Amino acid sequence: MQNPFDDTYFMKQALKEAQLAFDKNEIPVGAVIVCQNQIIARAHNLTQTLTDVTAHAEMQVFTSAASYLGSKYLKNCVLYVTLEPCCMCAGASFWTQIGKIVYGASDENRGFLKHKIPLHPKTEVVSGILKTDCSALLWQFFEKQRKLKS
Amino acid sequence: MQNPFDDTYFMKQALKEAQLAFDKNEIPVGAVIVCQNQIIARAHNLTQTLTDVTAHAEMQVFTSAASYLGSKYLKNCVLYVTLEPCCMCAGASFWTQIGKIVYGASDENRGFLKHKIPLHPKTEVVSGILKTDCSALLWQFFEKQRKLKS
Repeated sequence: MQNPFDDTYFMKQALKEAQLAFDKNEIPVGAVIVCQNQIIARAHNLTQTLTDVTAHAEMQVFTSAASYLGSKYLKNCVLYVTLEPCCMCAGASFWTQIGKIVYGASDENRGFLKHKIPLHPKTEVVSGILKTDCSALLWQFFEKQRKLKS
Repeated sequence: MQNPFDDTYFMKQALKEAQLAFDKNEIPVGAVIVCQNQIIARAHNLTQTLTDVTAHAEMQVFTSAASYLGSKYLKNCVLYVTLEPCCMCAGASFWTQIGKIVYGASDENRGFLKHKIPLHPKTEVVSGILKTDCSALLWQFFEKQRKLKS
């Protein structure tokens, strides 16, 4: 029997969070953290709502997962996020010592890969899961913004 | 007449925050944000207290200053921080578009300089203000920790 709780399943949950951000007129990025096949934290970008540039989905989901586990470290956890983390979020992931990062769409401008941000040596990275869906939601958002401005 | 509100004055205020962290058994790093010669936010490292690796002094002071100003961006502000910002905090400073970063002690291992983290093009950097005092407090902390463990 196929495991229904695979990377695609959890990325779909992160996409649901991204949709919540979209509905609030926030740049649609969503994230979940999974520990032993269970989602222990969910978050979406809230930078506009909170007037706080640090309120990226990843930053909030790290804080939330640590609070749930009662542990600063997320060694046995997986972060699913719809967009490649930026320098700030990759830097935060280093401190969490997270076991794995799975992201959807690439961010060639502001993503951590371009800037060679060091992750924790024990952090595994998987990219491109549901990247078309993750990108499409972002493009839809920026298209909507463009039309509102014109 | 000499301006009493110079970099040394504000770094002393950041050091006071670092001392508060020290007193709570936190790695002693403190920060203040200054706008038009006025301190608008103060914070110190609270990663142990909050069980949250993202609770660096800089992250908290960015959030607090943005909340005070009602603006996500800190273009006309100066961050004073006792230790060179890490990748996460430097990444956050990029998003704030902060005008200037003044730090005390260097962090040759985890500081943003070693990892060439891009700051916002409009962010000016000054280093080494009260670096001996900033470093001394950190060394005192690690020495205390070492003694507690032995």
